[in-house]
Amino acid sequence: MAPDLARAIVSRHPQDGRRQWKIEDVEVHAPDAGEVLVKIIASGVCHTDLGCGSFPDGVGFPVPPYPRVLGHEGAGYVVNVGKKVTKVKPGDSVLLSFAFCGKCHNCEHGAPGYCAQFTPLNFCGNPKAFELPGSDKDRPAVGGSFFGQSSFSNLTRVQETSVVRMTDLVKNEADLKLFAPLGCGIQTGAGTVTEIGAARASDKVAIIGLGGVGLAAIMAARHRGCRTIIGIDRIDARLELAKSLGATHIINTSTVGDGLEKAVRDITEQSGSTITIDATGVVSLIQQGIEFTANQGKMILLGVAPMDAALQVALVPFMVTGKQLLGSMEGGVRPADYIPRMIQWHRQGNFPIDKLVKYYKVEEFEKAIHDMEEGITVKPILLW
Amino acid sequence: MAPDLARAIVSRHPQDGRRQWKIEDVEVHAPDAGEVLVKIIASGVCHTDLGCGSFPDGVGFPVPPYPRVLGHEGAGYVVNVGKKVTKVKPGDSVLLSFAFCGKCHNCEHGAPGYCAQFTPLNFCGNPKAFELPGSDKDRPAVGGSFFGQSSFSNLTRVQETSVVRMTDLVKNEADLKLFAPLGCGIQTGAGTVTEIGAARASDKVAIIGLGGVGLAAIMAARHRGCRTIIGIDRIDARLELAKSLGATHIINTSTVGDGLEKAVRDITEQSGSTITIDATGVVSLIQQGIEFTANQGKMILLGVAPMDAALQVALVPFMVTGKQLLGSMEGGVRPADYIPRMIQWHRQGNFPIDKLVKYYKVEEFEKAIHDMEEGITVKPILLW
Repeated sequence: MAPDLARAIVSRHPQDGRRQWKIEDVEVHAPDAGEVLVKIIASGVCHTDLGCGSFPDGVGFPVPPYPRVLGHEGAGYVVNVGKKVTKVKPGDSVLLSFAFCGKCHNCEHGAPGYCAQFTPLNFCGNPKAFELPGSDKDRPAVGGSFFGQSSFSNLTRVQETSVVRMTDLVKNEADLKLFAPLGCGIQTGAGTVTEIGAARASDKVAIIGLGGVGLAAIMAARHRGCRTIIGIDRIDARLELAKSLGATHIINTSTVGDGLEKAVRDITEQSGSTITIDATGVVSLIQQGIEFTANQGKMILLGVAPMDAALQVALVPFMVTGKQLLGSMEGGVRPADYIPRMIQWHRQGNFPIDKLVKYYKVEEFEKAIHDMEEGITVKPILLW
Repeated sequence: MAPDLARAIVSRHPQDGRRQWKIEDVEVHAPDAGEVLVKIIASGVCHTDLGCGSFPDGVGFPVPPYPRVLGHEGAGYVVNVGKKVTKVKPGDSVLLSFAFCGKCHNCEHGAPGYCAQFTPLNFCGNPKAFELPGSDKDRPAVGGSFFGQSSFSNLTRVQETSVVRMTDLVKNEADLKLFAPLGCGIQTGAGTVTEIGAARASDKVAIIGLGGVGLAAIMAARHRGCRTIIGIDRIDARLELAKSLGATHIINTSTVGDGLEKAVRDITEQSGSTITIDATGVVSLIQQGIEFTANQGKMILLGVAPMDAALQVALVPFMVTGKQLLGSMEGGVRPADYIPRMIQWHRQGNFPIDKLVKYYKVEEFEKAIHDMEEGITVKPILLW
């Protein structure tokens, strides 16, 4: 069967330290047995896309060689399914999330975000997921299956585990577009609060870094009724947005100087925060976060630190204070269970994700990225 | 009222790097309002006693200056009570545990082992708890109230929070002597497994360091029916004892060399241990423990590391594997609730603490310490 033609944002090797992304034609073959062919109508943009498409081959996560198609917050419709697929059928509306093996200890007994095969399935992906058009012999391969999906293409082969069926959950196409980022950034922030943090009304929550993930965490803490919710960032507009989403207090790191720990303690009657979430990956902020976490409190790592970064944990003080250091991948959730819960909160008016997103035509992707990097837009959604 | 005369193991300033402990007469005043005067009949000996009585003033935990009376696993009878004491009355049998303030966030909502005042109440204690006999003017003070109790004296003033009433729980004096160490070492090992680890039958537990605390952890894991229980130590006799207490596998670190991680993975079908407990405080073993802990598994710090020791946590691998780093103080338990539970397990034949202890007359304390340090005796109990 001849491959289908698609339009995709193809990331090519950076030049002079600058990202080289442009919209190109790519060819997509029929889905394998465990794959679903999806027509993408919308995709969120995440910092992880930028991190995986801005550096020379071999730097950072083990993604396929350039050229490659990124994108991992897709929404769309099923076009065709491989012969082993049981979850969806052609015509179903779907949101796309991360891929997992479904068989390892963590997939079976824990959370699939810690799947033993997470890196191969989500980062390594498939180096020949697409091809560039050409004569039969010399079609260059294009890497894909990023997070099992590569949603920066208007047609893409998706791992069945990445697919969450939405047919009975979304009312219309506008819903589907709005919910595109639920499957990664939003569930990561919210799940970290509700599942890993297991936040209750008595908790004092501090969230460092107010991008899409951090602001989703703010919304989830508000939804849980946490008594104190502290938003920490260096951009005033983000801090104001955090307030409008439920932060009871805000701290601007660019003005507080060395006084971050004191500021958090002053807000929390000196106890410190009972749940601290780092959504920056900045080691010095994580180190301060451990300091201002309350005795028996949780410090949850969420932001991606540099690959070789290490944290120094002073053993005796850490032990005697009963602090806990935890890692969050995808909020510790099962997307098929958790995405419907977030949609319900949204419908009840308790999870206003519409305040985080801004839509861009896919041709405007450079502007979308610029606005995200400048802090003008929290969560850009590209529309095909 | 004239002070009572007591006999105590008094720790004096070490000389030539050697511990200077001897039995001396000390004077004990009437209890303060929140104190209980206790006649001690038995006291466990713990490595923390040695750590706090072997180094020059100012080194290690902030204990009172020499001379001082240590001991923190006491059992005995109430002689007299301060006017605010409501928990016990003269004649009650009691076990002694650690002291806590009862008012801070952790005492009220968490576990009192993480009390905000833990260090002042348990280590700083009272620099004038006892006096050396002499004329009225020149009685030198002797530090005490170690863990609220200083049970290395046959008569001592104890903080009410340290007291657990045993009158309706022990049948006779032999019981009371056997249970002396429940209030510290044994509850710390057991509580770390059952409360902080929340161990279930599906768990694969690895315990590094098989002293009294580590072996109590083995017994608790067995009591919880954990499928795999790995005892790790360098002393064969300890490893054999661990097996007799329920360890399903043992690893001798002195023969396994660099292969500790591989050995644990081979035992656990490569997943690693889902609960790892370090009872050594040795940084290199903790570092290896993190490596062989399963994804989403818990690494629990229990052994006291050197005061300035730091652990290097590689942030990205730690985050993506969802491992958890936790500190245990006193097993995260409330002694008044947990000690009766351990006694019940013992009576049911599921918690054979009698296999850990050996009794010594108090005059033989040097032999007791020697046997503990040599690994001949796990938990010496001194009898008055």
